[in-house]
Amino acid sequence: MTAAPVDVVVHVCTTCRPADGPDAADERPGAILLRMLEDALAARAAAGAPLPVRLAPVACLSVCKRPCTVAATAPDRWTYVWGDLDPATQVDEILDGLARYAASADGIVPWRERPRIFKTGVVARIPPLPGLAPAAAE
Amino acid sequence: MTAAPVDVVVHVCTTCRPADGPDAADERPGAILLRMLEDALAARAAAGAPLPVRLAPVACLSVCKRPCTVAATAPDRWTYVWGDLDPATQVDEILDGLARYAASADGIVPWRERPRIFKTGVVARIPPLPGLAPAAAE
Repeated sequence: MTAAPVDVVVHVCTTCRPADGPDAADERPGAILLRMLEDALAARAAAGAPLPVRLAPVACLSVCKRPCTVAATAPDRWTYVWGDLDPATQVDEILDGLARYAASADGIVPWRERPRIFKTGVVARIPPLPGLAPAAAE
Repeated sequence: MTAAPVDVVVHVCTTCRPADGPDAADERPGAILLRMLEDALAARAAAGAPLPVRLAPVACLSVCKRPCTVAATAPDRWTYVWGDLDPATQVDEILDGLARYAASADGIVPWRERPRIFKTGVVARIPPLPGLAPAAAE
């Protein structure tokens, strides 16, 4: 199997659980999100529209109050952390947003091109190393 | 001037302003925090105890509801984002926490060694690239 070019790593918190409810489910929402993203990525690839995205499960992104949570990162790009994601209804919207992220030069997607959940759900963003760009506002 | 070994980049949001108050001050709290961290780092270096930390001002870390905010990062280490930081009272505690971060192997400081503000103020953490470590809990 020949690996496709992969630029963007998307960390998916697999231990995210409901912030305001019991943790009785066999499969936590974060693990469900990972599985559904995997399936949706495979479906897009099978349809001839693969995304340059590699999913990386992670035990905790420390955003426990805003499940589900993912972080997109790549060398020389801003890292973005998004929360409040719903695996039941938002997987396609997440992938659309990740496609925009992957297509950007530096990880910053113009505001009007961001899906709604990537506007309301942003938890933090971190500049790429070495972070030597001067501050734009002081 | 010979550069000292510098491992850790600390992004400091210079546009952080009070979350629940007017923005009337000439110098925003984020800019004050940057200046006070610079001064405190210089003081520690002058006292013979320099920290391997380089401050990098950034216009916005998108944690606007939890000012002030910083992010510590380095190659092959977890990135941590902390908020709720007070430049008036917590600069030494921030530097102590950054020293622990810099001394760690992978950016993860044992819980009991973290200063209080790095326990309560954590906004998010992101694994180092390539993020290939298996999830510790599924």
